[in-house]
Amino acid sequence: MLLATAWMLPAVAGADGIVDNVNGLTLDKDGKVVRFQALLVTPDGHVAKLLGAKDKRPDKLDWRVDFKGKTLLPGMIDAHGHVMELGFRALELDLSETKSLAEAQAKIAEYARANPDKAWIIGGGWNQEAWGLGRFPTAAELDAAVGDRPVWLARADGHASWGNSAALKAAGVTAKSVSPAGGRIEKGAGGQPAGVFVDAAQSLVAKVVPQPLGKDRNAAFVKAQTILLSYGVTATADMGTSIEDWLTYRRIGDLGGLRVRIMSYGMGVDTTVQIGGTGPTPWLYADKLKLVGVKLYADGALGSRGAWLKAPYADAPGQSGAGFMTDTVLRNLMSRAAMDGYQVAVHAIGDRANAEVLDAIDEMAQTYKGDRRWRVEHAQIVDPVDLPRFGKYGTIASMQPTHETGDRVMAEARLGPQRLTGAYAWASMLKNGSKLAFGSDYPVERPDPWAGWAASFTRQGADGQPFGGWRPEEAVTREQGWWGFTGGAAYAGFAEDRIGRLAPGMQADFIIVDRDPLLASPTDLRATKVQETWVGGYKVWERK
Amino acid sequence: MLLATAWMLPAVAGADGIVDNVNGLTLDKDGKVVRFQALLVTPDGHVAKLLGAKDKRPDKLDWRVDFKGKTLLPGMIDAHGHVMELGFRALELDLSETKSLAEAQAKIAEYARANPDKAWIIGGGWNQEAWGLGRFPTAAELDAAVGDRPVWLARADGHASWGNSAALKAAGVTAKSVSPAGGRIEKGAGGQPAGVFVDAAQSLVAKVVPQPLGKDRNAAFVKAQTILLSYGVTATADMGTSIEDWLTYRRIGDLGGLRVRIMSYGMGVDTTVQIGGTGPTPWLYADKLKLVGVKLYADGALGSRGAWLKAPYADAPGQSGAGFMTDTVLRNLMSRAAMDGYQVAVHAIGDRANAEVLDAIDEMAQTYKGDRRWRVEHAQIVDPVDLPRFGKYGTIASMQPTHETGDRVMAEARLGPQRLTGAYAWASMLKNGSKLAFGSDYPVERPDPWAGWAASFTRQGADGQPFGGWRPEEAVTREQGWWGFTGGAAYAGFAEDRIGRLAPGMQADFIIVDRDPLLASPTDLRATKVQETWVGGYKVWERK
Repeated sequence: MLLATAWMLPAVAGADGIVDNVNGLTLDKDGKVVRFQALLVTPDGHVAKLLGAKDKRPDKLDWRVDFKGKTLLPGMIDAHGHVMELGFRALELDLSETKSLAEAQAKIAEYARANPDKAWIIGGGWNQEAWGLGRFPTAAELDAAVGDRPVWLARADGHASWGNSAALKAAGVTAKSVSPAGGRIEKGAGGQPAGVFVDAAQSLVAKVVPQPLGKDRNAAFVKAQTILLSYGVTATADMGTSIEDWLTYRRIGDLGGLRVRIMSYGMGVDTTVQIGGTGPTPWLYADKLKLVGVKLYADGALGSRGAWLKAPYADAPGQSGAGFMTDTVLRNLMSRAAMDGYQVAVHAIGDRANAEVLDAIDEMAQTYKGDRRWRVEHAQIVDPVDLPRFGKYGTIASMQPTHETGDRVMAEARLGPQRLTGAYAWASMLKNGSKLAFGSDYPVERPDPWAGWAASFTRQGADGQPFGGWRPEEAVTREQGWWGFTGGAAYAGFAEDRIGRLAPGMQADFIIVDRDPLLASPTDLRATKVQETWVGGYKVWERK
Repeated sequence: MLLATAWMLPAVAGADGIVDNVNGLTLDKDGKVVRFQALLVTPDGHVAKLLGAKDKRPDKLDWRVDFKGKTLLPGMIDAHGHVMELGFRALELDLSETKSLAEAQAKIAEYARANPDKAWIIGGGWNQEAWGLGRFPTAAELDAAVGDRPVWLARADGHASWGNSAALKAAGVTAKSVSPAGGRIEKGAGGQPAGVFVDAAQSLVAKVVPQPLGKDRNAAFVKAQTILLSYGVTATADMGTSIEDWLTYRRIGDLGGLRVRIMSYGMGVDTTVQIGGTGPTPWLYADKLKLVGVKLYADGALGSRGAWLKAPYADAPGQSGAGFMTDTVLRNLMSRAAMDGYQVAVHAIGDRANAEVLDAIDEMAQTYKGDRRWRVEHAQIVDPVDLPRFGKYGTIASMQPTHETGDRVMAEARLGPQRLTGAYAWASMLKNGSKLAFGSDYPVERPDPWAGWAASFTRQGADGQPFGGWRPEEAVTREQGWWGFTGGAAYAGFAEDRIGRLAPGMQADFIIVDRDPLLASPTDLRATKVQETWVGGYKVWERK
């Protein structure tokens, strides 16, 4: 109950009100910029009207906020994130800023010393590429940091995890252990497990990691929500909601504590059907939570060479990655979900995986008519011959601009120069008639829509590299990039009738920022500071 | 959505109103009868005031219902039932009225013929005692009715199930199968499984029975709710809510379809903690649903000789039943639940099990102070030396009057005449200062509070037997019996501040019945017909 009240910032809505004297900016439903100076808000937190400088203000208002000319934008929407993981990651050991194995080892040892009561050291964010290691780290290297208890650390992309000897022992993993379907135990001398477990093999150890308690889950959720609001994110897709995640959202919702709107995609068909029963839920808690569809996986990630390619990896000639399931199983799962009206979102990174998902969508679309909005999550490496296929059946390309800027060097190594024509091909997606939705894939990347927006029209990282942008022909316009993080992301979650832009009847979800993002240089845009975040006509976060 | 609207009977509340010209009866908080002629209802469905014949009616009212002198009572509350099982049982093959094995076989065969599309024939309600069989039925006897597909039928008390050869084959149960802890595979010639599986052994076959779909669960819930409302039951404890059950209640609640109020006790600690996270939920959906606590099992049932006795069964000298878990495990589970503020309800039928639970409560009460309301479910066969212990720590005896009338002959056979002094000892519970709550244990018995109420002060069955009542010294008064099904049942679920009687501030949950239950003979009381059922100021059921 302490938590419940802590989130409750003073509300000024609940009555007719006005947010006045703002540099108001939004896109309209056609993606065109609309400017306004004031926003009328209804008692139930919706937008009543946008007003210009010369428009008369109503005489009777219950409340008024004067922002003295500051910039007001619709809340940002992240079309692909992992809410609970964001919270857990933020409360756990975080290696995402480490630049070398040695630095990571020191940080791990320090964290263990500072947390003597933790039976397991849990964390993540490591990336052997960022360390310049050129190979996975080993259990022995982790033992050197912490030997007295199990350590289990997820790779930045979540597609691999690294354990020390105590963790492997607790899990009973030995030289005799066999890699499960869809996963790989990295092996060392004599077939001994080397310490890293890729994709499905992670469960061999993960299953013995102590589960978080309800209070841990609540705390992780609250943490995640605060982080999202601090970036101006007022709605997000949750890509792979577990039963525990869902029950956590309900608990917080029951206490009146949901602030960020969650478009939930159940983790697999069984979970989705268990939650939804007969189909998607209605919008719950005044449009704060809805089970929209199902998240499926066609393959793994590029960094861990789990992405499924048409031809072998350039830097590992014997490997092409692998599909997470057979073609038939994928279609059966998509069909089972579509049958009950769940939206289907399939993770596909490699060109082979993308082709398989497009094949499956072709087949599904023959049976499941109407407005289905098939989603391909990431759509990262696409064979150019497959690009036009994204335009069929209103398929949504749910992409993450910061994956391009973060992964381009690694992607070049994995694929070689010949296979990058259809990589992170945002402009091609639009040109081919696909619907584009942008997200961050947090916590894989920071849930920072400003970095994503800047990357979307520059194809450059925070360092301004590469000069002129990487494959700049795939940049979108500044407005298209914004739409990807607002109206496009709302459309991708069947929520465009209530969020994604400011217009009469829409939820009054808006943010006050310290600069005009349409005038800012890319570097300035990345530095945008959100000052206040409002959801449904209530101020739910402000910068202290 | 069809379902959602189908439940929505025309509402007359939502505004100030009056239910007038009734023979109004309720108990007050001290269990004394209060008579009134009219009930004022607030716009949010609570009782504003009870009015007598001479009291002035308010001038301004938005609605008025004149019941022309009919009897109005507070809604009945069942302190121990199984909501989803009631619904499923009602939609499945029901053998509860069969009087012989041959009749059951004929009914099973007929049901299979009428349902050629069902891959499994599922049902329950059989009772070899009611058939006069003197032994469990066999797989071969079930094969004689249905041989072409699996059949799996639960015993009336849910503590045993009966399968045919196809079911046993599907489950891979053979002569080599071993009875699991807390369960027993009935064995025949050569150690072959005989067809009946007791307690935990049921899972050997149950695990391969196809799971119901979401729509099946929704349909079962709606069916259960309708049945309960038709008996005038407006609130119920759900004793052993699974995750699927909970998600079903939430789905129906999200659609605005909850009518009966549910006090939910999670099935075991893991489920309870998974749902509640950090403790009981708030009341949800305008007091329609709350996770209150946890349901645990100390033993099985008397009929299947799963009840744990201090001395062997009179009719099976080698057997004393068995505890479902060790003393230490039971205490650990109770402690784990109590630690987070969940109420603990433990099933205990046999005298040994009751003593164990009382021992555990003694120990828990040293650590977990305050208003805990430890519940013993059934408290059926109690060693007289243990009876006074129910008065300590406000322990609640949650008992079922129709178990006494339904089981007394079987209980005499199982226990012999010497051990019945503390059996179904309702009056002793009150005398010793225990709080008494009454229920039906539906679907084990019909969810008929009128039969239960009549049994409570007569100790006689519907047939008026035995003359003068069975061990009539344990009868309670007519008012005490009523309290057990109203205020006592509410108190047992921490709900006495909102339901269980009609008084200002309480929910306007009431029923219109066709006779005055305080004046009716026991036979007439049993025949009570509910004409309308109102929950929270809305009419939610009426007899057609």
